[in-house]
Amino acid sequence: MTNRLYENEIFYVEKEESMIPWVKIFTQRPYKELSDCDPVTQKKLLEAMIATEEVMKAYYNPKKINIAMFGNYVPHLHIHIMARFEDDSHFPESMWGLKQREAHLFLPNFEDFAKILSEKLSKF
Amino acid sequence: MTNRLYENEIFYVEKEESMIPWVKIFTQRPYKELSDCDPVTQKKLLEAMIATEEVMKAYYNPKKINIAMFGNYVPHLHIHIMARFEDDSHFPESMWGLKQREAHLFLPNFEDFAKILSEKLSKF
Repeated sequence: MTNRLYENEIFYVEKEESMIPWVKIFTQRPYKELSDCDPVTQKKLLEAMIATEEVMKAYYNPKKINIAMFGNYVPHLHIHIMARFEDDSHFPESMWGLKQREAHLFLPNFEDFAKILSEKLSKF
Repeated sequence: MTNRLYENEIFYVEKEESMIPWVKIFTQRPYKELSDCDPVTQKKLLEAMIATEEVMKAYYNPKKINIAMFGNYVPHLHIHIMARFEDDSHFPESMWGLKQREAHLFLPNFEDFAKILSEKLSKF
């Protein structure tokens, strides 16, 4: 059982276990910062980030997309992309902020989202 | 007294009041999501994000750069770019996470950083 949704030579995409739709895109090479990347990796990674946002927005119709690159614990460049809803556990706080409520979201299934996303990313 | 460091037709850069070096880049047009932007704005905004990271990295030599696009409170597209240090108030947590310690950082002055950054961004 893996949480890897997609990969190519440049990056791979994993599911973060969460109540909200949340994926992480990692570079295959162990870069630390976005500006450390070779130009092809940097371009493809940012294109993948935007494509993921687009698919997430169209599929889930969230209140807001949240994106973050931290890597303070794991210094291997990765981008978090999350679909946020007004009634999720933390909104309007970030997912790293204070929990606001016990939430029960009823969302379209993640497997179909993952399939649509993989198809889009495979066309790059 | 303004906290605006730089602006052009596409975006503007503001200082966030914080112990750490922290700037926010806003689009001039009131876009909500990165994927809502017209192509020129999207490209220039991401270029500015990377340029800011580069200048911050070179000037402050931080442990890690952190980047975030949330906008849950203010749905006007903006990018947070932060220089993080092992002994800052929150490291390794994100700046939206739990405070870890009382911190006293001794950093190069922000005004010179802002000047270098503005010069770089003005060449776009």
